[in-house]
Amino acid sequence: MFDFTYYTPTWVVFGRGASAQTGALTAAAGARKVLIHYGGGSVVRSGLLDRVKASLKGEGIAYVELGGVVPNPRLSLVRQGIELCRREGVDFLLAVGGGSVIDSAKAIGYGLTNEGDVWDFYDHTRRAAACMPVGAVLTIAAAGSEMSNSSVITKDEGMVKRGYNDDLCRPRFAVMDPELTLTLPDYQTASGCVDILMHTMERYLSSGDHMELTDALAEGLMRTVMEDARILRDDPQDYEARAEVMWASSLSHNGLTGCGSDGGDWVSHGLEHELGGMFDVAHGAGLAAVWGSWARYVYRDCLPRFVRFAQRVLDVPAEGSQEETALRGIEAMEEFYRSIRMPTNLRELGVRPTQEQLETLARMCSAAAGGAKGSAKRLREADMLEIYRMAL
Amino acid sequence: MFDFTYYTPTWVVFGRGASAQTGALTAAAGARKVLIHYGGGSVVRSGLLDRVKASLKGEGIAYVELGGVVPNPRLSLVRQGIELCRREGVDFLLAVGGGSVIDSAKAIGYGLTNEGDVWDFYDHTRRAAACMPVGAVLTIAAAGSEMSNSSVITKDEGMVKRGYNDDLCRPRFAVMDPELTLTLPDYQTASGCVDILMHTMERYLSSGDHMELTDALAEGLMRTVMEDARILRDDPQDYEARAEVMWASSLSHNGLTGCGSDGGDWVSHGLEHELGGMFDVAHGAGLAAVWGSWARYVYRDCLPRFVRFAQRVLDVPAEGSQEETALRGIEAMEEFYRSIRMPTNLRELGVRPTQEQLETLARMCSAAAGGAKGSAKRLREADMLEIYRMAL
Repeated sequence: MFDFTYYTPTWVVFGRGASAQTGALTAAAGARKVLIHYGGGSVVRSGLLDRVKASLKGEGIAYVELGGVVPNPRLSLVRQGIELCRREGVDFLLAVGGGSVIDSAKAIGYGLTNEGDVWDFYDHTRRAAACMPVGAVLTIAAAGSEMSNSSVITKDEGMVKRGYNDDLCRPRFAVMDPELTLTLPDYQTASGCVDILMHTMERYLSSGDHMELTDALAEGLMRTVMEDARILRDDPQDYEARAEVMWASSLSHNGLTGCGSDGGDWVSHGLEHELGGMFDVAHGAGLAAVWGSWARYVYRDCLPRFVRFAQRVLDVPAEGSQEETALRGIEAMEEFYRSIRMPTNLRELGVRPTQEQLETLARMCSAAAGGAKGSAKRLREADMLEIYRMAL
Repeated sequence: MFDFTYYTPTWVVFGRGASAQTGALTAAAGARKVLIHYGGGSVVRSGLLDRVKASLKGEGIAYVELGGVVPNPRLSLVRQGIELCRREGVDFLLAVGGGSVIDSAKAIGYGLTNEGDVWDFYDHTRRAAACMPVGAVLTIAAAGSEMSNSSVITKDEGMVKRGYNDDLCRPRFAVMDPELTLTLPDYQTASGCVDILMHTMERYLSSGDHMELTDALAEGLMRTVMEDARILRDDPQDYEARAEVMWASSLSHNGLTGCGSDGGDWVSHGLEHELGGMFDVAHGAGLAAVWGSWARYVYRDCLPRFVRFAQRVLDVPAEGSQEETALRGIEAMEEFYRSIRMPTNLRELGVRPTQEQLETLARMCSAAAGGAKGSAKRLREADMLEIYRMAL
């Protein structure tokens, strides 16, 4: 078991009608002027934005608004937000939306409290010294950004997608009302479930030490999310399954399922980040499309973990060789992805990169990692190119 | 599923040699003058206290000391601590020890930041408005006080043991070095494992709604702790098992294993609190001594949960009636307690109350709960008396 730190300071208010508490939570955080940050029209159409505003008004908190966050949130809007907040004297960032909106708010928070270009943090040329406090009203269960230290932003020029992790950005509070997710399109629900699973799988399918307790929690979480994803495929209105998936989104990426591990592998995320930047695909779907190829490329180098994954998460019976068991686990996971109508290759994802694009993806993925990445197996540019090819 | 809030702001630093970071963590918390609070001689003899002092000195942090905390920590020492800290201008409370020391520090924290008698909070006649910040260097895996909102104090006059729960007291940081627990006596290790298990069992064996995800995490935690308790019975020097038990102590009582539940039952804790007050027994051992009798008294009223507990935690095969399965689960749990040399009744605990004492215990337990307590089954004084009698 490796030593670890664990820090999840976010105040979570979970349940039906929780968004009514947004104003009180924002006031308790000491906010006086808030940026309400959001994405497209759904939070407007559903009336959520109006309810959030009323809740802030009820506490006498002033606000300005900035909508327009898109999936794979853009640096250009982050820069707009930084300017707007400076001009307006904003002291708290309230994200109303999913991971993209929360990630964008975190980026604005870094930009507001540090000199220089905010992209530096995402480009990993320096670290932030502070972040303006962020709160979240969650509308999509997927990224776990509502409790995590992660923020992923896409630079418009060249569509470069990069993540920056820092405890400074962990939200002060997260309002989680599962009812807000009842109307999500099926594709987004399934993509969210893959994202949630992958946040734990990245930590679980890695070399180095592990902890039985963390493994038990991770296995329980993965099994539950898979079960709930199937329930929601058949009945998107199932509140209990929505609630479990929403809570799992937080627990899967707040650090809990990695305590004692080596920090995780994260190559699948790296491969997807380049795809997401270049082709603007849904994050979870992109992960599903590359995972099987990654897994087949690396499983022999991380055999005990893949065997455990197969047996404890996917109920693969213990017969045949370890390699056979591991492979059956990978197949069972891909079968699960297909069962919730998620892609298992780039073609099913709707992406057909040219040879040149494949090489660019691999080169950028490798460069973003400083040359090599991965714990299950350490991978370089040529490995990444091979995985992209396997995933075609 | 019930709505819930979840708030675990404690910065956890976990691993070998973690106590060296105490000074830096205390400085980061803004402390200038610290009370080092501890119990008996073991932290002195082991050199831990000196290392903690050196770590504080290294950061230029002044400190005063107050040792002498005993299991079932006393209100009289809390009052001494409050006076000392007022006199010395202490602004941070550093608990070096187990749950008793942390609980005592929390009580001092309430006393320092609120007017009037600190016992009022434990007597539930009013709530605290603040608590001076607490940090913990953990030396015993059991109570989970290093991340929890709980503090349990025993009033010397009449030996009345009462708990007070408030998010205000959740520690700012917790330093957890499993090596510090390698030398614990077997009885204390086993008693700690029971305490850890019971914090989740109290939440799990309750009526009302539950959540599959929370149940999966709870079951994983309980199975892991039972396995580790057996490992430590045979090899107290097993670092991995010590580490898992230590981390489980935090996760079992920080709220994680109760999300979505009705808050839990907590009658076993209530019954033990009276025993602990009157007979000064080890908390975990006291819980083990009353749990079986409580379970037999209530299981028919909470049958689905006891059946699930039997099957998922204790591997009782699904044969016979639900009642038979539930009873086999209770028997299996008692067998586990015996396997780690924990008592399953008062006699084995070393306590032989008189008829009058039994009646006093039941009367006080009922009065502490305002007349009735319990979620698996709502219990009153007569019920509590019957359970104490069953446990003789």
